[in-house]
Amino acid sequence: MNNPIPTRLAALRAAMKQHGVAAVLVPSADPHLSEYLPAHWSAREWLSGFDGSAGTLIVGREQAGLWTDSRYFAQAEQQLAGSGIALMKLRVPHTPEHLEWLRQQLHEGDVLAVAGDSVALTAQHRIEHTLAGVSVRTDLDLPGMIWSDRPALPQAPVVEHEPRYACIARADKFARLRKAMRKLGATHHLLSSLDDIAWLTNLRGSDVECNPVFLAHLLVQAEGRATLFVSRGKLDDVLVAALAADGIGIADYAAITSALQELGANDHLLLDSGRVVSAIAAGIPQDVTRIEAANPSTAFKAVKSAAELEHIRDVMRRDGAALVRGFRRLEQRLAAGMTVTELDVDTLLHEERSAQPGWVGESFATIAGYQANGALPHYRATPEAHSTLQAKGLLLIDSGGQYLGGTTDITRVLALGETTAEQRRDATLVLKGMIGLSRARFPKGASGPQLDALARAPLWAAGMDYGHGTGHGVGYFLNVHEGPQSIRPPVAGGALVALEPGMISWIEPGLYKPGRHGIRHENLAVVIEADRTEFGEFLAFETLTMCPFDRRAFEPNLLNPEERAWLDDYHANVRAALSPLLADADLEWLNRHCAPL
Amino acid sequence: MNNPIPTRLAALRAAMKQHGVAAVLVPSADPHLSEYLPAHWSAREWLSGFDGSAGTLIVGREQAGLWTDSRYFAQAEQQLAGSGIALMKLRVPHTPEHLEWLRQQLHEGDVLAVAGDSVALTAQHRIEHTLAGVSVRTDLDLPGMIWSDRPALPQAPVVEHEPRYACIARADKFARLRKAMRKLGATHHLLSSLDDIAWLTNLRGSDVECNPVFLAHLLVQAEGRATLFVSRGKLDDVLVAALAADGIGIADYAAITSALQELGANDHLLLDSGRVVSAIAAGIPQDVTRIEAANPSTAFKAVKSAAELEHIRDVMRRDGAALVRGFRRLEQRLAAGMTVTELDVDTLLHEERSAQPGWVGESFATIAGYQANGALPHYRATPEAHSTLQAKGLLLIDSGGQYLGGTTDITRVLALGETTAEQRRDATLVLKGMIGLSRARFPKGASGPQLDALARAPLWAAGMDYGHGTGHGVGYFLNVHEGPQSIRPPVAGGALVALEPGMISWIEPGLYKPGRHGIRHENLAVVIEADRTEFGEFLAFETLTMCPFDRRAFEPNLLNPEERAWLDDYHANVRAALSPLLADADLEWLNRHCAPL
Repeated sequence: MNNPIPTRLAALRAAMKQHGVAAVLVPSADPHLSEYLPAHWSAREWLSGFDGSAGTLIVGREQAGLWTDSRYFAQAEQQLAGSGIALMKLRVPHTPEHLEWLRQQLHEGDVLAVAGDSVALTAQHRIEHTLAGVSVRTDLDLPGMIWSDRPALPQAPVVEHEPRYACIARADKFARLRKAMRKLGATHHLLSSLDDIAWLTNLRGSDVECNPVFLAHLLVQAEGRATLFVSRGKLDDVLVAALAADGIGIADYAAITSALQELGANDHLLLDSGRVVSAIAAGIPQDVTRIEAANPSTAFKAVKSAAELEHIRDVMRRDGAALVRGFRRLEQRLAAGMTVTELDVDTLLHEERSAQPGWVGESFATIAGYQANGALPHYRATPEAHSTLQAKGLLLIDSGGQYLGGTTDITRVLALGETTAEQRRDATLVLKGMIGLSRARFPKGASGPQLDALARAPLWAAGMDYGHGTGHGVGYFLNVHEGPQSIRPPVAGGALVALEPGMISWIEPGLYKPGRHGIRHENLAVVIEADRTEFGEFLAFETLTMCPFDRRAFEPNLLNPEERAWLDDYHANVRAALSPLLADADLEWLNRHCAPL
Repeated sequence: MNNPIPTRLAALRAAMKQHGVAAVLVPSADPHLSEYLPAHWSAREWLSGFDGSAGTLIVGREQAGLWTDSRYFAQAEQQLAGSGIALMKLRVPHTPEHLEWLRQQLHEGDVLAVAGDSVALTAQHRIEHTLAGVSVRTDLDLPGMIWSDRPALPQAPVVEHEPRYACIARADKFARLRKAMRKLGATHHLLSSLDDIAWLTNLRGSDVECNPVFLAHLLVQAEGRATLFVSRGKLDDVLVAALAADGIGIADYAAITSALQELGANDHLLLDSGRVVSAIAAGIPQDVTRIEAANPSTAFKAVKSAAELEHIRDVMRRDGAALVRGFRRLEQRLAAGMTVTELDVDTLLHEERSAQPGWVGESFATIAGYQANGALPHYRATPEAHSTLQAKGLLLIDSGGQYLGGTTDITRVLALGETTAEQRRDATLVLKGMIGLSRARFPKGASGPQLDALARAPLWAAGMDYGHGTGHGVGYFLNVHEGPQSIRPPVAGGALVALEPGMISWIEPGLYKPGRHGIRHENLAVVIEADRTEFGEFLAFETLTMCPFDRRAFEPNLLNPEERAWLDDYHANVRAALSPLLADADLEWLNRHCAPL
């Protein structure tokens, strides 16, 4: 098969010449600035051939480059071969290092084109600021103009999140939002971020793989109605009527621009410039007063209610029981000498999870990495390239499910047989990090970056580290990656969001030795109130994930007494939580794995 | 004695009326933005009666307030009684919360006066920005105008830091500085910070208590000479000739303004607006190009050379031996039934330290706090108010010395006899924090705020914390408090200075229970290279301070095996380092305190 990329780049360059454009910037973004994109907006992948989740393409008159971070260097090198696009390795992930390159390449008066529906307002301002003198056109979508076989917009149905799972009525969420709007002096509020919209409306969809969201914008009046801009065909009449009863009208997805144009000089529009794209904001009349602030719903949904947490705890039991069954069947097949591949792991877990009540789908593509494959944090086995498991070494399994009552994400490392001392030591050091953070108490007001070192110190002591963050928020039957809080090393100018009771975070230290093996342990945990003393309020984590670790991967004598006690306590909790849901060989497997060290 | 404060405030308000001033801002600052001020610039203390190290006074037409942080609430309340000045408690230390108050009090067109020699350029800009519409006059020093009995400028002699201790020749330091200036495109560089000037010139003085610096400004040409603006009477002719030989001329302290006025349109002046006051910067002609950057010498002097570290290690042995002798004599007197007070502790340590070769003076006023007095982090015993020691409970001693070969700062908690279980538990938890940070390895590039939690986690686990930072840089026979690195919780917008090999930091977790007792353990430690692995370079701390802990204050069963090993290792090092310097009862005391747990 010929590589189609050079032909596509040639077509793009012809269009550039025709429009007098010196360079085209193609971010990985859609009009909702989602982390995962519908195919309709995967222009960067279509133009470059690189399909990693993070990457920025720049096509100049002669040169082209793709910027991505270390997770994707190997993959990008392979996928860009023969494309004429150079791999540009980011020194610091998620930073706009490509702008520095553009600044050197472009001259005063040059035109840079970037599709206005793929760039946040704040990003556009940063581009214009960095490239002062260059004309930045967001009204010229050159990739869109040459993309003949562009996939259509997704049309998956939108459904109600059943009230007994949604826990908080839509009307109550909007009332709370309007209160926050009035406090900020806003008459209107524009939202484009899909998880905010899904959470506020108690609606779910499946327009984005693994993320139960739907394409929409939302315009809320502080006094009056709200309008949901969504493809009408996605909602049935009953749902439209239910929304109308709650003061939410429906308009076409594309009508957001004309709705914004109707705003006037007396209107005060609340929007988060980091979460609204230029093409949408371009419709806002000049005389509208803009109020710049984070979407209030982002902070609201980060803190889970007691009722939501009850559902999540129930989901964690079912998810854990499904994993126990899947892990036991996996072991049984290996013991029986059957051929089992990394792909079969995905199939097994899918079978077990999908049999659970309230199950909706995977929360992300399962990562099952055997031995050296586990050292690739974003590895995905494919029918063309995957490993066959053997009765030795380590299998890293990172998987999760979407349930009506919550979203799960868990990583376990299974010892399939004999392991090396280095593997056991590494798995134990990562466990020590997980325990260090999981059992931490911390003062109210502390942020994730303040705590991050607690998960890394045991690895640092051995001259090791991992290149990703330690934790991030998780949605409630929503995106597995949700803001605003995160646990990662502090960065200059970075936000320091205080951890609050009810916030859920994953805790996932890791360790990756390319060509050898990878370790990652991951639990979800909720922040709880721990203590109130003369020194103030103290918070802690309650681990929500309920699934045993594979102790055969550990070296118990590397654990100190507190760490052993934490692990034994955790396994006692897991056993109590899962045994009512398991029987026979599964229950025996659980009991064996949950016995004290 | 009548309280003189109301009279002074009345005089100030009369001057305010005369000059049409609505409010006067009196920061704690001198023209060098030093942490500790010569009496000549203690206007805030003279006007308010409050003599804490941190505080900002505002005098309005009717109201007056003093802003300080929690360390000083009790002291300020007492000292401000009857003054007519309200104590304004800072919610967050070292923040300009007083500006918010001013913003509410002042109206468009009002005049705010703040002496230009007491406010950094950056601070002035922040005031003007926060109080837009208010006229800010820095040319009107109203406190100075009414301060009839104002102390004269200090006139202590300036001396050469002996070359064998200074380690790096003045000429080499200036050559390095000029290289950095050229890289920044600077033709001139203005320095007002006293420790930068002392370090660069290899000169020392004693104009500021405990800090071996002298009042001066420095103007350095990239190509050409440097001029030291200092009172001529402080230097003898030999020193002036030596400086001249190194290309450093002398001009009068006050002549800096006229020297700056001579700069012209072709000059590019490097200065740090946070370390130069408005009154000095006002002399810079408009057509001079300003290059805004941190003083390069601040980064240079933070990293100690191998030769400096050798002197420091030697000083640490002598300082530790002096403390052992002092502690033993203290115990002996108590055992003999003699009356010993907190003031005697200071005297004893002074006697022992001052007998050491190379000793110059204290590096700060000794804190000796018995029982509840130890709970005041900045406690200072006075002839009027101090406690008599008894053969029970805890004595917190925080002290340090200035030596030609380095600056020391150490805190130990002595158990004078019977202690409570709570005291021992608290002392042990703080020790666990100190050990956690002291034995940490961390990747190159990590900053203090990234590591701070390692010192707090054991306290947090018990629902406790401390309100001060964990560590800060220390000068080399210079200020005991030196930038740019620090170990403290991350703050939004705060700097994240990477720890580098050769940087010295104190490590001092603490715990304060008002009315009961206070704990603080403090060592100085230098960052060293620890390891180079496939994951990169890793750094660690080498503890420099050599003095045993008083194990009688601890509960050994609260320490895990790694922590016990650290403490035993440390005591073995201390014993090896100090035993050659001690004999008889002192040696016996050392051996007893350094035995394994």
